Amino acid sequence: MKKFLIPLIILLLTWSTCNKIAESEHPSLVISRQEGKAIRKALGKYSLLDLTYNETVKTVNYALSHPLEVPKPGEAGGYEHERHKQNYRDMKSAGLLFTITGDEKYAQFIKDMLNKYAELYPTLDSHPLAHDQKPGKLFHQMLNETVWLLNTAQAYDCIYDWLNPEDRQRYEANIFNPMVKWFTIDHPAEFNRIHNHGMWTAASVGMIGYVLHNQDYVDMALYGTNKDGNGGFLKQVEMLFAPDGYYMEGPYYVRYAMRPLVFFSEAIERNQPELKIYEFKNQIIKKAYYAAVQATYPNGVFMPINDASRTMNIQAPGVVYGNSLVYFQYGEDINLLGIAKIQQEVPLNAMGLKLAKDYEKQVPVPDYGWKSREFTDGFDGKQGGLGILRYGEGRNQTVLTMKYGVHGLGHGHFDKLHFMFYNQQREVIPDYGFARWINIEPKYGGRYLPENKSYAMQTIAHNTVVVDETTQLKFDRKKADQVHADRHFFNAKNQNVQVMSAKADAFYPGVGMQRTMFLIKDARLEYPVIVDLYRLSSVAVHQYDYPIHHRGQLITTNFAYTANTAIQKSLGNEYGYQHIWNEASTTVNKCPIITWLDGNRYYSQITSFKPDTRVILGRVGAGDPNFNLISEPLTIIRQTGADQLFASAIEAHGYFNEARELSRQALPVLREVKVIGHSQEGSVIEIFGENGLHWRIMVNNANASDQAKHILKFNDKTYEWIGNYSVELNME
Amino acid sequence: MKKFLIPLIILLLTWSTCNKIAESEHPSLVISRQEGKAIRKALGKYSLLDLTYNETVKTVNYALSHPLEVPKPGEAGGYEHERHKQNYRDMKSAGLLFTITGDEKYAQFIKDMLNKYAELYPTLDSHPLAHDQKPGKLFHQMLNETVWLLNTAQAYDCIYDWLNPEDRQRYEANIFNPMVKWFTIDHPAEFNRIHNHGMWTAASVGMIGYVLHNQDYVDMALYGTNKDGNGGFLKQVEMLFAPDGYYMEGPYYVRYAMRPLVFFSEAIERNQPELKIYEFKNQIIKKAYYAAVQATYPNGVFMPINDASRTMNIQAPGVVYGNSLVYFQYGEDINLLGIAKIQQEVPLNAMGLKLAKDYEKQVPVPDYGWKSREFTDGFDGKQGGLGILRYGEGRNQTVLTMKYGVHGLGHGHFDKLHFMFYNQQREVIPDYGFARWINIEPKYGGRYLPENKSYAMQTIAHNTVVVDETTQLKFDRKKADQVHADRHFFNAKNQNVQVMSAKADAFYPGVGMQRTMFLIKDARLEYPVIVDLYRLSSVAVHQYDYPIHHRGQLITTNFAYTANTAIQKSLGNEYGYQHIWNEASTTVNKCPIITWLDGNRYYSQITSFKPDTRVILGRVGAGDPNFNLISEPLTIIRQTGADQLFASAIEAHGYFNEARELSRQALPVLREVKVIGHSQEGSVIEIFGENGLHWRIMVNNANASDQAKHILKFNDKTYEWIGNYSVELNME
Repeated sequence: MKKFLIPLIILLLTWSTCNKIAESEHPSLVISRQEGKAIRKALGKYSLLDLTYNETVKTVNYALSHPLEVPKPGEAGGYEHERHKQNYRDMKSAGLLFTITGDEKYAQFIKDMLNKYAELYPTLDSHPLAHDQKPGKLFHQMLNETVWLLNTAQAYDCIYDWLNPEDRQRYEANIFNPMVKWFTIDHPAEFNRIHNHGMWTAASVGMIGYVLHNQDYVDMALYGTNKDGNGGFLKQVEMLFAPDGYYMEGPYYVRYAMRPLVFFSEAIERNQPELKIYEFKNQIIKKAYYAAVQATYPNGVFMPINDASRTMNIQAPGVVYGNSLVYFQYGEDINLLGIAKIQQEVPLNAMGLKLAKDYEKQVPVPDYGWKSREFTDGFDGKQGGLGILRYGEGRNQTVLTMKYGVHGLGHGHFDKLHFMFYNQQREVIPDYGFARWINIEPKYGGRYLPENKSYAMQTIAHNTVVVDETTQLKFDRKKADQVHADRHFFNAKNQNVQVMSAKADAFYPGVGMQRTMFLIKDARLEYPVIVDLYRLSSVAVHQYDYPIHHRGQLITTNFAYTANTAIQKSLGNEYGYQHIWNEASTTVNKCPIITWLDGNRYYSQITSFKPDTRVILGRVGAGDPNFNLISEPLTIIRQTGADQLFASAIEAHGYFNEARELSRQALPVLREVKVIGHSQEGSVIEIFGENGLHWRIMVNNANASDQAKHILKFNDKTYEWIGNYSVELNME
Repeated sequence: MKKFLIPLIILLLTWSTCNKIAESEHPSLVISRQEGKAIRKALGKYSLLDLTYNETVKTVNYALSHPLEVPKPGEAGGYEHERHKQNYRDMKSAGLLFTITGDEKYAQFIKDMLNKYAELYPTLDSHPLAHDQKPGKLFHQMLNETVWLLNTAQAYDCIYDWLNPEDRQRYEANIFNPMVKWFTIDHPAEFNRIHNHGMWTAASVGMIGYVLHNQDYVDMALYGTNKDGNGGFLKQVEMLFAPDGYYMEGPYYVRYAMRPLVFFSEAIERNQPELKIYEFKNQIIKKAYYAAVQATYPNGVFMPINDASRTMNIQAPGVVYGNSLVYFQYGEDINLLGIAKIQQEVPLNAMGLKLAKDYEKQVPVPDYGWKSREFTDGFDGKQGGLGILRYGEGRNQTVLTMKYGVHGLGHGHFDKLHFMFYNQQREVIPDYGFARWINIEPKYGGRYLPENKSYAMQTIAHNTVVVDETTQLKFDRKKADQVHADRHFFNAKNQNVQVMSAKADAFYPGVGMQRTMFLIKDARLEYPVIVDLYRLSSVAVHQYDYPIHHRGQLITTNFAYTANTAIQKSLGNEYGYQHIWNEASTTVNKCPIITWLDGNRYYSQITSFKPDTRVILGRVGAGDPNFNLISEPLTIIRQTGADQLFASAIEAHGYFNEARELSRQALPVLREVKVIGHSQEGSVIEIFGENGLHWRIMVNNANASDQAKHILKFNDKTYEWIGNYSVELNME
């Protein structure tokens, strides 16, 4: 990896030093005057363009008809905070409209606004409410200030030529140069940081650098404050994205990192085309975009991996810009038109115009849709990955995702081998997401809440095994950054039997873990079934908790249990267990089946039995003094052992419609999951169901190989197969 | 009342005895041959008609292409149960299609099915799984069997002339006559019962009576098994519906009672037009229909009063039939077209054809919409009522409903003066509805669960005051049937200040209760505000609990509290308190404000303060050994006193959108609700908010009068107003 990178950086450094930026015509960041004209001519012809344009006019006209407000800085999520955010959005939009229409009222609006900022900004110092974030001056955190600059640079670019030199001089002296100084001299660590905050900072300085024809700013942006390639945008892009584009912090943060990535890349392309940014790291920008939008569900919502909102979707601004950019720069893909169908917006420039034209030709545009795919993680692509199995087409696709990559920096969760399950157009076995009420001021200013660390980041908050009621790596972030899970095998060639397998041996001392997840469609069952083989290997005896989170109503179990009806206690004192109410528990004497209802469908979890298996029915919400957590149920299967295999089937079945008072097949077809045996070499399980249904599933636990032959003997019976797995659905 | 009824019954008896039913052409229950022809000619012209017709063809063709199944009876909600239900639906639809198309395959299908029933039925005796219901033979409860007959009678009517006499004789001897005997001789009490089950039984016997030209059956149906007018359909209609049409069991059950009501009424009209059924009890059928559909929210969902599903809506079959019937018989009302827009279905007869034609002329049909209205309750309309205040238009209407009528028979809840609040297109201060997972077999066969009595029917499950932690009338159903609440006043003339007031003095011995609820729109607030004055009067000191149920996430309070973070207990041992977890509680020293988030909006409850006010934050779900209850939060304000006034404001405010990460105005404008004073004559409160907002509200507690002048003195200050209330929104 390094072999490739260093010469490239040197090459780029040479280029950029030789090629002093031309004093080209403005604007040149996201739109040119020519593009403005083309858009003007195209209005009224293409629905997506018109929608975007009309919405932009409406928003800016609203701003124009109200008094300008540039208030003193306020608290996070408060009125002033939101006002400054609206101001940069309005300025940016006004700049585009000025370029498209030539109407000076838009330019004047930006100028009036900048006049106010030029008065306010010099009076400000570090924001007093930064708490544990790097402070800005206008905003409590510097991050928001870089967003302000990235947007305002675009507005300034659009009116640069229209302004007189004295005004320009004043804005630069009072706003832009001090702001760049704040980012590069006062807070260089944030600037150079390999993190989405770093990308924002570098990109914003690079953007204003291009507008100001300030090569110093641009070079810092590209190569770090020391201009040595160890910090700055290119290094960040190199380190944060795996070679096939997966972003280590996860999809919620990639939609945010996407914005500086695509806006600055496009600005580089327009101002320094010789850098060939769109070829950088084997077209990493294209790959990053595709990886981001493939980590979505069919409804456009990003999979809530790591710290994440459960509702963030592809309508986010960076994804809107990226969609047209990738379509324009990398070729016409009808899936991108399907994405635009959800976004209902395009950038107001040549890229957006092209997409809007092609979209119009395709109406009715089909839903976008992805196939099963595995992404690698880590800058070198060798640090595990993310497996996504998909069954079916369109909005009703079923999606099973397993996470086995790197920790994901400060927003990472301790949840290796965790999975999420989506159907009925939403997560039914969900990730909790973050513990944060974003932008809700009375909830700790909308920031991350204490429960994010005490619950949402902990292993038990996820659908992965917890060893001895402690979190992976005992919640040690530093250790987590140094390790990762490993892919074992992935095969989705046969849509009816898809599989992914991964290992995580570095997360509990002395305990190896391998999870193999199948998505199996048997013609006798209405929906695909999850088959999950979670194997733990250890010399010592441990307690293993196998949790499944859901959002439904418990319907029935095949065992009796004692509910804690008058008093209930939290399940533990630490590692997230303090946040779970123990609603009911029991020891079972057979393979437990738990059936719940969620929406219009029933779900049953059937897990293999061994003596002394405990089942705990819990609910999130204990240890929550300020009602920060969301009340949701979970089940835990608790078994004790050294080497141990949890084999489970999770079946979606039947139909319920309360309004129509219909219910069908409230009980699962599958009735028993039996572990035949497991060893370092392989695992063999059998699943039994109604009407003689009988499956045998065998999995390779040793080194992955498609060719290796496995012969295992359990209970005097021999089991043979070739390759990583064998699934036999029609046993006698 | 009786003065009017007895002569009418005598008149009807005379009529029906004189007028032997003509041996008219079949079919004559819901469609005639002529109507069938008219429908055939109209196909392809009217969207609603085509939708219904095509859906009917699809369903029947599906049945025709599958083997007939008439299984032995099974358990409630089980396969056999559902099979018999599908059979009568299919037979009925096939009958209509035979009449419309003349295609004999439809007639043959019904005949084949009846052949199987003619074999099975004579072999059956009382269903063994009836539990506490009256048994049927095909079904566990007789009710389902009456539904079978009411539908099958229609199918039989359609092929009657096509069948040969021997077959008819066999069906009558083997099925219809024994079934009528089961209803009229073996279970006459159910037949004559003043209850929706009684209506179903009577109507089903009347329907088959018309088909068989059996005047004995028809007379029993109309006047009871003794034909004396003390039972049967007319008496049921008379007693169950108030003079303005409100149905005493509530809207969930009226949509069910609607079916025998409208189907049998139309059959009467077609076969005994001399009975003038559509004029009966001052056009009670029209009024009953309008009362039913006015007890809905703008999304078409019935208000879940008493035992009720939370999702039952106007797509229910009786409402679909009733909608066209009322439109046809009582005049063209564009609101009924709006209802049809949600239903997307019409009956396949002349009534449905007319509505479908008129609908087509009106496309795009506006949403249906009702104005504020009060309904009276009880057969005489003098037993309290139901008040509905509505603000705004269309789907985003805000609706405030207060319940102050009769108990509502076996499905009644002990919840007088209870209210529900709807906006954002759903209930945000909800009624719990019933504790029942309808038709879900593993949940006690889909029947009512023990928690229906132990929780859902109890006072604390509602938004009305609980005295001394006991339910109204200590859950004595017999006592409840003998009393009712009373209307006090209702005024919705001024859309910005709407009010309803009611009293309930017979529900807690020695404690008088009056609740006055305003829906107030002040231009300074975004949404209408509830102002609630709940007054209790007593000589003795009591503990009063004022509960508000919601479905949101607690955001903030203006007081500190101690959450029960490691252990939590149920709030009590009986009267529903055993089902509430005590999540947090505290004693407050000022007017408590509780803010929660639900959907895209914040809600704040602000209640008046007096010393030793306790606030309890609870959650439903304790005492629930089988996870039958739905986990939902509530707040309880607990105060102790003799005469006592809870004065509250409930404000909807601000906006939250997680996907867009927007939050605005998470705190309410209103900040304090102050009780100035209250007496037997009147109550005076003041409400204070941000920016000097100051309201004064005065309410008459004595006999209602628009003219009476009130002069009250509290703390040496005099308060004067004329009429039932005074609302001053612009106090200095």
